[in-house]
Formats: sequence, structure tokens, C-alpha cells
Amino acid sequence: MRTLIKGGTVITAADTFAADLLLEGGRIAQMGADLPAAGARVVDAGGMLLLPGGIDVHTHLELPFFGTVASDDFYTGQRAAVFGGTTSHIDFAIQHKGESLHQAVENWQHKAQDKAVIDYGLHVAITDLNDTVMAEIPSLVSAGVTTLKLFQAYKGVYQVDDATLFRAMLKAAEAGMLVMVHCENGDVIDFMIRDNVAHGRLATEYHARSHPAWAEAEASLRAIALAGIAGAPLYIVHMTCAESVDQLRYGRARGLPVMGETCPQYLFFTTDNLRQPDGAKYVCSPPVRTAADNDYLWQALSAGHLQVVATDHCPFLFDGTQAIKYEGENYQKPGKELGAGDFSKIPNGMHGIEDRLLLLCGPTA
Amino acid sequence: MRTLIKGGTVITAADTFAADLLLEGGRIAQMGADLPAAGARVVDAGGMLLLPGGIDVHTHLELPFFGTVASDDFYTGQRAAVFGGTTSHIDFAIQHKGESLHQAVENWQHKAQDKAVIDYGLHVAITDLNDTVMAEIPSLVSAGVTTLKLFQAYKGVYQVDDATLFRAMLKAAEAGMLVMVHCENGDVIDFMIRDNVAHGRLATEYHARSHPAWAEAEASLRAIALAGIAGAPLYIVHMTCAESVDQLRYGRARGLPVMGETCPQYLFFTTDNLRQPDGAKYVCSPPVRTAADNDYLWQALSAGHLQVVATDHCPFLFDGTQAIKYEGENYQKPGKELGAGDFSKIPNGMHGIEDRLLLLCGPTA
Amino acid sequence: MRTLIKGGTVITAADTFAADLLLEGGRIAQMGADLPAAGARVVDAGGMLLLPGGIDVHTHLELPFFGTVASDDFYTGQRAAVFGGTTSHIDFAIQHKGESLHQAVENWQHKAQDKAVIDYGLHVAITDLNDTVMAEIPSLVSAGVTTLKLFQAYKGVYQVDDATLFRAMLKAAEAGMLVMVHCENGDVIDFMIRDNVAHGRLATEYHARSHPAWAEAEASLRAIALAGIAGAPLYIVHMTCAESVDQLRYGRARGLPVMGETCPQYLFFTTDNLRQPDGAKYVCSPPVRTAADNDYLWQALSAGHLQVVATDHCPFLFDGTQAIKYEGENYQKPGKELGAGDFSKIPNGMHGIEDRLLLLCGPTA
Amino acid sequence: MRTLIKGGTVITAADTFAADLLLEGGRIAQMGADLPAAGARVVDAGGMLLLPGGIDVHTHLELPFFGTVASDDFYTGQRAAVFGGTTSHIDFAIQHKGESLHQAVENWQHKAQDKAVIDYGLHVAITDLNDTVMAEIPSLVSAGVTTLKLFQAYKGVYQVDDATLFRAMLKAAEAGMLVMVHCENGDVIDFMIRDNVAHGRLATEYHARSHPAWAEAEASLRAIALAGIAGAPLYIVHMTCAESVDQLRYGRARGLPVMGETCPQYLFFTTDNLRQPDGAKYVCSPPVRTAADNDYLWQALSAGHLQVVATDHCPFLFDGTQAIKYEGENYQKPGKELGAGDFSKIPNGMHGIEDRLLLLCGPTA
Repeated sequence: MRTLIKGGTVITAADTFAADLLLEGGRIAQMGADLPAAGARVVDAGGMLLLPGGIDVHTHLELPFFGTVASDDFYTGQRAAVFGGTTSHIDFAIQHKGESLHQAVENWQHKAQDKAVIDYGLHVAITDLNDTVMAEIPSLVSAGVTTLKLFQAYKGVYQVDDATLFRAMLKAAEAGMLVMVHCENGDVIDFMIRDNVAHGRLATEYHARSHPAWAEAEASLRAIALAGIAGAPLYIVHMTCAESVDQLRYGRARGLPVMGETCPQYLFFTTDNLRQPDGAKYVCSPPVRTAADNDYLWQALSAGHLQVVATDHCPFLFDGTQAIKYEGENYQKPGKELGAGDFSKIPNGMHGIEDRLLLLCGPTA
Repeated sequence: MRTLIKGGTVITAADTFAADLLLEGGRIAQMGADLPAAGARVVDAGGMLLLPGGIDVHTHLELPFFGTVASDDFYTGQRAAVFGGTTSHIDFAIQHKGESLHQAVENWQHKAQDKAVIDYGLHVAITDLNDTVMAEIPSLVSAGVTTLKLFQAYKGVYQVDDATLFRAMLKAAEAGMLVMVHCENGDVIDFMIRDNVAHGRLATEYHARSHPAWAEAEASLRAIALAGIAGAPLYIVHMTCAESVDQLRYGRARGLPVMGETCPQYLFFTTDNLRQPDGAKYVCSPPVRTAADNDYLWQALSAGHLQVVATDHCPFLFDGTQAIKYEGENYQKPGKELGAGDFSKIPNGMHGIEDRLLLLCGPTA
Repeated sequence: MRTLIKGGTVITAADTFAADLLLEGGRIAQMGADLPAAGARVVDAGGMLLLPGGIDVHTHLELPFFGTVASDDFYTGQRAAVFGGTTSHIDFAIQHKGESLHQAVENWQHKAQDKAVIDYGLHVAITDLNDTVMAEIPSLVSAGVTTLKLFQAYKGVYQVDDATLFRAMLKAAEAGMLVMVHCENGDVIDFMIRDNVAHGRLATEYHARSHPAWAEAEASLRAIALAGIAGAPLYIVHMTCAESVDQLRYGRARGLPVMGETCPQYLFFTTDNLRQPDGAKYVCSPPVRTAADNDYLWQALSAGHLQVVATDHCPFLFDGTQAIKYEGENYQKPGKELGAGDFSKIPNGMHGIEDRLLLLCGPTA
Repeated sequence: MRTLIKGGTVITAADTFAADLLLEGGRIAQMGADLPAAGARVVDAGGMLLLPGGIDVHTHLELPFFGTVASDDFYTGQRAAVFGGTTSHIDFAIQHKGESLHQAVENWQHKAQDKAVIDYGLHVAITDLNDTVMAEIPSLVSAGVTTLKLFQAYKGVYQVDDATLFRAMLKAAEAGMLVMVHCENGDVIDFMIRDNVAHGRLATEYHARSHPAWAEAEASLRAIALAGIAGAPLYIVHMTCAESVDQLRYGRARGLPVMGETCPQYLFFTTDNLRQPDGAKYVCSPPVRTAADNDYLWQALSAGHLQVVATDHCPFLFDGTQAIKYEGENYQKPGKELGAGDFSKIPNGMHGIEDRLLLLCGPTA
């Protein structure tokens, strides 16, 4: 089938110009002035902008986490995404302990099966790196996965030690893959969380106090340094603060192929939000920081010191005790209320906050 | 007894002036022009400079290490020091696993007993931090020890994990003590050493290749960041390279009370020395770096970006198979030859190199 | 007339893709797969890249300078340009003392008349800014000129004082125009040239010694600062050295809308070239610098710290005493030989060096 | 005569210790414990600190300026200074047009004659540099003057052009003298003052608006760059803002022997003070800046990026229409009221503000 989109203004990464677009087989076949409509369905785009679909490179649909599961699955999440203009995304297939990486990929493909309505890809998150898993890494490329994710945070859950991270980097460099890292010092954060809980400091804002900016900054340089030694390219996910970005700049200035991502939550929210009655909505990891950090991130994006904005979309309902209606069906999953009275149990992920911010991946229930 | 030193030029930290000095009871009682000699032994210092004695804040006399022991004990080391103008030093009492910190202090005092000929003090190096040891920390102050040393390096020997380092910093901050850290990423270095040995890369220069500058730089920022979170002052020992000093500057520019030390070996030697036939003499940890790093350190000292020069005096004989004469006695200890054919077994510490460089702590046998 | 270019690979600022191009009336009418050839002249571009034509924003064709005139006129220069892939350029109409700016524009249009073979535009260089000229500035916009050029260099010829530069910036800001500046301290350079000549230091390399990097760096910050006070955007032409680029970065980091240009000669040549027997070929202003500066400029371009590469094409024949054949005609103009034996008289502009470097504007006779 | 100061605590640049001081012939003859009092007048300093007297290296006593003269002469100024603990100072002998430098020195010595009560020295400010004056420069050293001051500001009064400044630097380098510069762009400031006055913008705060920070910053780098080319050491007086200090740091980081001074007014006051009813008291040049600049200067002093604090003591009475009593005499000079209604006529110099800030040089009438 052919579709002719007439009269719009095309915007590409470099140019803005008036042109008709002729689509054939789902691809743009022709661009130009006054294209002939013969045999095509015609869409009038007069006065409209025609943009490429957005790509969200960091999402967690249907992620099991904190004793529940992220509230968006591959249908609800993608449906929301496409309404917001995001037409493809990359999710994380997370290896369970003892599992192969290919098994992780299959697990996530299974989640997407019968649900996906837009394009998606997968990163693989390594949590258990034995020799068998090491040997398996290069074969992921032919399965369409070219990125490995590792965590310096979430001690006892996802966290790997430095030697593991370093070995994965060596292997990735060899296989032409990219390593992504969640940079926070899990050991120190784990101690601080336990210490705050033990002392009865349970309020939501202690989430941020247990995850200080310096713990992210040092982990960022640690990942950068290890990548530098391993000769591997590096992509640091969800950078939140001036100190971390400074380290990224330092690594780049020393010639290392390292890149950084930030997310809308770090551009707009601060620890003040955690002190609101609905502060649990704003609990994500790393945490939201200060207004000065918000500004710093905007400037870093503008100056090219940060390379990517993605969402880290991993939503949890604010009140999972009540079913909600979604396309006529009852929908219910435990959410932020799991952490009522104890910040350390609040699922870490931004609540769908459709009335405030249109995430790249779109609003959620 | 009174001593009058006449006619010299006194140099203090701030001034240079001609003055006589009258000593009483081992202290300077008077300074001035033409002091009366009555009842005093007179020393003619005409044409001479009178300087305060040097203080070397980083030494390891009689340290058991790499299956042998550092070749200088409290007599030979201090004797050499004082001939070089160093009149006091601070050594490290290192806790053995399972031992109390006070026991470590006693062990080192025992080494010094009957041997010490100049003033000395002790830092305590924590290698095993359980709750009993934690509770013991503040009491060190009244025993004259106000500094704690921890290692991010020497995996399986001295290395502590980040939570341990952080807890020690919290306690030190509480007790008004200073934390010193050997900053290198022990996990990655341990992997690299094993990997090099496994692949038969055994030459001396692989010592430096297994201890890359980035492994020191990231550990430096890690220590700085943890100190920043803990609110503790920090002193980083033996900084060797531009990347580490840059991190120190960064921490200081962010207002953290962090200080850094370098050593003569890092100001004068490079990895080229490791490739000499007697390269083992230059094996120390962290390793010697590049000529550009030498220059950077000199500039950093000059600009005040580094605060201290100490020696990390921890010498090993180059050839411990032969006895040498020292004050008429035969003296023999295993030394650098332990690592012949395998860099990973060379005792880490600069050989006494009296023909090249007068270390602050003086030449050694 | 319609032209269909078939089978090529189109390269835009953002994308690379296979497409046919249909040209109508000198413009691209359609891009797409398998465009119909009906009625069009067909060009087979199989295996070829289709790129946009280059734009050289800094040229001086037929410029009267140093008692002669640049060797390329609007025909020879543009012809060379288009063979090199440059399809448009912007030249500088330079105001003579006492002349109006519109007169300068007309003078330059006259030079181009009957000669121009590609698109060109004009900047206007102000050398004499009285109140009448001030009032005339905004009217240039409707004449198609939106950029003003001023010189801090060439004392007694083009140089303006700081108040003049500042007033021009105020007026440009008001009129929505861009100010370009040649940043070198003309007073100090003039003194150094005279001083070198007076002391018989006449060799070609004294051209560079009389134009030190610091003289460019300070003038760069001076222009940036004045633009910052005036609220005017600024474009610094032909930046050559680390110190200047550092100042540009500083201005940009402080939020000022300032941009910088470098040229091929500053990316490839050094003062060593001035010491060659044909060193006069490499005399341009500012002068070529060091190999370290070359590297710094490449890095600055790569990191986005410099925004533009243009040529400052202002060629002079190396030996103007001999006629050369150009399209069958004898061609002769005085050139670099004017400065034989006295660096201060060498026309400042790169000799056409077609055997070394394809300038953006193309090779010249 | 001998004086014994007993029981005080001596503070030197490096140390603090208890000691008696024996003074003989106006000098410290002995320091020590329990010095014998024989034949000496004894002063009990129990509980007191004994500090060296302060040195103020930047003052303008009895300076003719803005149609009046600074309100402190060598008696009133020095008397105030010594009460504040400042026991020596260096004033500026300013060359009048057409005058020799030695004449300037004599003029200022004449002002001091019969009035001076503490030690003082002189810098010489060059305002008219012809060849005779150039030749005279080195001879100043034997007259006790080793510093030359030049102005980039005060167009038509003190300002010199860049070639003059540069030539003075060359001569100073040759003669082993130090060049001090008042760094502000006089051309642009002069234009802005005239422009503000012409538009009726006469309020006191337009003093600061006519002297923007960028005009100081660029002039600072200009002086640094010229000193760098000339190979001369440089001392920039009264630095007031972040941008200028950044340039000083840049020059120092590039290895140039350049130093900077700030003054109490720039550490404590802001443009808010200019909007007070008595804002004229705070008119000095360069002007007071922002609170952020105050902070930046404190940090720069603390970090060693600025080297000196001096006062630029050049006071004018706030209301010179009324005589005041000083040591029983009537004292009257025109002051800040000269600029009532026109900021450009307010004498540039801080009013004696004894109730707010003890200037190094002490309070004034």
C-alpha cells in the first residue's frame, strides 16, 4: 500500500523543508515537491510538522523489582510511547543468577510476544558472570544484542564487583560491543540504607540521603577508568549530578570513548519533591538531586557534554491497592505503597506522572 | 646542659636570618645576636645553615612483606635518616587479621625498642575492621596515634572493601582522626597480575602494566568521595600520576579537606627504569610512571596542588643472597631476587639507592 | 530543464542513503528510489557520492594589499573553487578611508561582474567609522550584507581602536548583524615589526616572531569581552593557537554567543615552514604556529570548541616577476618577491600551494 | 635604648610560640624564654599576641584627583595606619605629563617630608613615556624604586596605549623591575561614561555600569599577554571579579610570573551599596561588583590564586563642604559632593568608612 503525506514540513536531524512524502511498504520511497498521488492514500499534513519517531534507549517494561513488577508491560508501555511520538525503544533483558544470557533474551522476548505494537530492541544486563557466560557474550551480536549492561549498585541483587565489570569490558571490547553501566557505589549505599533504617530514619527523603551524589560520581569515574584500561567504549546510564558529568567530561577530555545519558526526572525534579506527601512517586535510583544539578544537566546537554536523553521508564503505581480501569479491564499491581513507612522498600522507578511530564516513552497508567 | 650554636644562618619555614641559638634541655631556649656563651658548650656554625630537622611521615621499617622483611630496621633506618637530616618519622603499625589495633601499636613499638635513635610516631593500618576494632579506634588518640591507614589495594592481604573504608572514615571523623589511604583498585590489579602471569608476561615492566594510572586515579576519587560523604579529612599517600592529582584538585576545588602526598621515586623515575637490567630495584606500588607524570608532580608541588613529599621508605636489598657488612656485622635478608623471573613476586618497595637519590629518610644498606 | 541523477549515494549533514535526485530549475525537486526519468536528462551516478557544494565563508579575491593585489580574481578563484567542490563563498568588501560602506559593496560587486561563475556573498569590512558610516550600517541588511568585519591588527591600514570596535558591535546588535574580528594586537605587533627591522632581523621567520600567540590570544578575549558588554554575537576569524581557542572556550562557557574559525594553513603548517627556502609562501597573518597548536586546533574542531573551517584565501604568486600561462593567456602580478630580504614587506596571504593542500576554495595559479 | 617585651605570644609567618623579645636600636636582638631584663625598659605583654607590623603596598596619600585631593596626607594617613597595625606602606609617585620620573619621586617625597611617621616606599606611575623617560627607568632602582605602574584606564589622564605599556615592560624586564598595571579598558569605559551622561543616566550606580567586569577581565589578559611576550613579571592591582581572576589563573597556569592583588572593598561591598543614599562613598575604580564576586575573591585568596590584599587607600570626604575637627584643627577638602548629580564627577576612591571596615591602612577622617 502506498501513502502520500502532502503539504507538511519535514524535519530531519539537519534540515527543515516543505516536501510531500510517499510511503511504500512502510518506508519513505520519495520526498519532493508536488509528488503525484496516483494509487496512494492521501493524508493532508498542511500546517503540520513531520518528524522521525523518537527512540527511547532505556526502558524497563514489566520488570520484576522490589517484590512487584513495573506497571507497564510491552502493550501498555508501547501504546503510551507511540502516542507520545516514541516509535521504538530498547529494553533490558536481565539475567537471573544461574541463567544464560540467551535465556534472558528469550525471557524478555516472551514478555513482548503478543503485546508489542512498535519496534523494540534489547540490551542484556549481566548479573552473574561465570566462564560459561563470558564465552557466550560474543554470540549475542548475531542475536541482535550489541550492548551489555552492568550494575555497580543494588548490592546483593544486580551489583557486580570491579573485576567482573572489568572482565566484561575486556570481552565487550573484543566483540565490538558497548558496555552500559549504572554507576553508584552499591557498598556504601547499602551501608547507608541499613544505617538509616536502623536509626529509624525512614522518611522518603532518606532515599536521596542514602544515595549521595559523590557515590555516583566516584562510580562514574571508576567505570570510566576501567573502560579506559580495558580499551572498551562505555555508556553511563542516568547521570544526575554535576560531579558525575564533570567526571564524564574528564574522561572524554583524556580521549576515552565514553558517553553519558540523563533522563527527564533529573532535569525537572529535586529532593524537594521527595518531601511532598506523594514523594514516593519521585523515588528512582539514582535519586533526583538539586535545582543546581537540573541546571547543570541542561547546560551539559546544550554543550554536548552529555550525549543522550532517555527515560529509564520503569513505572510503579502510586497506589497499587486499588484496581484501575485500562481499556475497559481492571488493572492492578502492587506499587509505591509497598514502601509506606520505609523508604528502603519503595519500588525504585518514577511513577507515571502524566499530568506533569510527557516522558519520551509516553504517559503510563 | 647548654649548647650555644654561634654564627650560623637560621632558616625557618618563613624567614632566613643570622642568629645564635642557645639550646637548653634539648630545646631552643634563645635566638638572637651575640648571645652570651656563659656555661655553654659552643659550636661554631660560621658559614653554615641551621635548618629544622626533616620529618618523614611515611616509612615502613622492618615491615614483613612479600615473604621477607624490609631491609631497614629501626636502627639502620633511623641512623641513615639522621645522617640525611631527617630527625623524626612516622611509621605504620599494621594490624594483622584478628589482632587489636593496640596490639599492632605494641608490635611496632617492640620493633623500635632498643633500636630507635631519633623521634618517631606511628600511624595504624587497619586490615580487619570488626565491631570490636571499630570501638577501639577512638582510644588510639590517647595512645598517641591520630591517623588511620587503609588500603584499597593488595587484594587478599591489606585491601578492605568500600563499606569498611567508609565506616572507618565515619569513625575517624567522630574521633577527630585523619584517614590515610593507599589508592589503587586492588580487584582490577589482582586480575591483571594473574592474567599477565597466566600468559607468561613475567618481565619486570609488567609490574607497571598491571598497575595502570587509571586504577590509581579512580581509587583516588573513590576515597575522596567516600571521605566527602563521611565528612572526614583524607590524606592520600604516594600519588604518582597526573590523573590522580587531577582528582585531588577536583575534590579540593569542591571544598573537601583532602590532601595528597608524593614521593621521590615518582618525581625522578619512570617505567624506563623497569626495563633496565636492575629494574627490580624500581618496583614499588603504585609503580613509577612516565616522564610527563614526573613533570606534572613537580608542577603540582610547586602550585600547592600536592601538599607533602614523603618517602614511603620500605627498602629491599637488590641481592639478598649475599651477606653485606654493616657496622662490622654480617647482615643478610632476602630481597628483590625473590621475584627473579616473575614480576609478581618482587617485593614492592624501592631498593636503597644511595648512589642516586638521598631519600628524605636517608640512604639504606 | 530537468535532470535526473540516478543511482548515487546522497550525503546530507545528518544522513547517508541511496536515492535518485530530480533537479528542476536548478533546485532539488524530488529525492527517492527509482524516480521516473520522463523528460529529464539522466546522469548515471552509480558508485558515486552526492554531496552538497562547499561554502567558503572567508575569501579575499582581487584584494589590493601590500602594494600588489591578490593573485586570484573572481574568475580564477571561483573557477578553482568549483573544481575543488566549493560552490559558494563570501568575500570581504573593504571600505577605503572616507568611503561609504555601500560604496565598498559596489566596488566589490564591480570586481565580480563579468567574472563570477559561482554564487558569492559579501561581508563588509569597516576601516573608517564616522557617524555617517554608523548610520549607514543597518541599511546593509537590505543590500544582502549581514556581517561586519573589523580589524584589531594592521595598524595604520585596517586597524580600529577599541571604542570604534565597541560602537560597531552595539550597532550590529541593534541591527541583528554579526561582527567578525581579526584578533591580533596591532600596536604591539607594529612595534615588534619595526623593532625587528631596525635591528636587521629581516628573515622570513621574524614574521611569526613579530606576531606572537599571546598577541592573538589577548585580542581574542578583548573582542569577546567587548561583544559581551555590547550584547553582540561575535565571529573570530582565523584562530591559530591554543591560547586563543582557550579564550573562545572561556567566553562560550560564560554563555556568550561567540564563535571561532580556523583555516587549513593553521592545521597543517608550522613556523618550520617559514625557515624553508620558499618560506615566504607560508607568510600569512596571523602566522602559522607550532605542531602542538596544529593538534590543538584539530581537537578543538572535533570537540566543537571551534565552529568553522574556512580558507582566508588571499593568494600571492611566489614569483611575480615571471608571467605564467593561464587559459592560454599571459598572467602576471607582483607577489611574494616583494618581501625578498625583508619579512615585513612580504604580502600576507598563503601562496597557492596546489601541490600540497586542496584549500576549500580550491587551488590557485 | 633597650626594651624587653615579656610574656607575649609571638606570631611569625610560620610559627606561634611563647617568647620574650629584646629590642635594641629598633630591631629585635633576641627572642627566647626568660630573657634577662637588665638595663631594659620592660613591657608586660602577658596574654597578648606579638605580630609583625602590616605592610600596605597600595596607597594614594594626598593624591590630586578629580579636581580635589585625597583627604589623607602623609600624616593623617600614616597615623591612622599605625593605629590599625600597619607600620609601613608603599605609595605611588605619579608622573605628570612632561615631567621626569625622578621629579615625580621628589614630588612625592616632598609630600611626605615633615609628615611621615612610619616607614614608606614609592612606586612610580608612568603616564608619559618618551625616549628620555625610557632611558631614565633603570636609574630608579638606585633611588629605591623597583616598581613601575601603568594604567590601561583613565583615558586622557593616566591611560597609556599598548605599545607604551609593552615598551615599559621590556625596559622593566631588562632592569629587573616589576610592572604593576591598573587593568581596565579605558577606551570602552570612556565611551560608556560619555554615553550614559549624554543620555541622562547620571545616578551613582552608573559608575559600575560604565565599568563592566569584562572590561577589567580583557585588560587583565592584555597585560598578562604583553608581559608574557616581553618576558616581564607583572603585578595586577585591585582585581575585583571572577573573570579577571580566571585570567590571572590562566596566565599563571601557562607559567607566566604574574601576580594579582585585591582590596577590602572588593571583598565586602557590592553594587547594592551604590544604590544607597550614601552610595558615593563606595565609588572606586574598578567598581565594587556582585556578592558572587566577593565570594570568588575570598576563595581565590584562600586557594592562592590571588597573592596580595592591599587597600588602594585613596579616601575622599563624603561631605567636603563642612570643616571637620582633626587634632583640634579645622580640616576641609572637597570630596564626594563634587559628583552630586553626576556619577562621572565623583572622586574615585573609597570614603573613609571607619565604622564598617578597618582598612589595612587604617581608618581615616
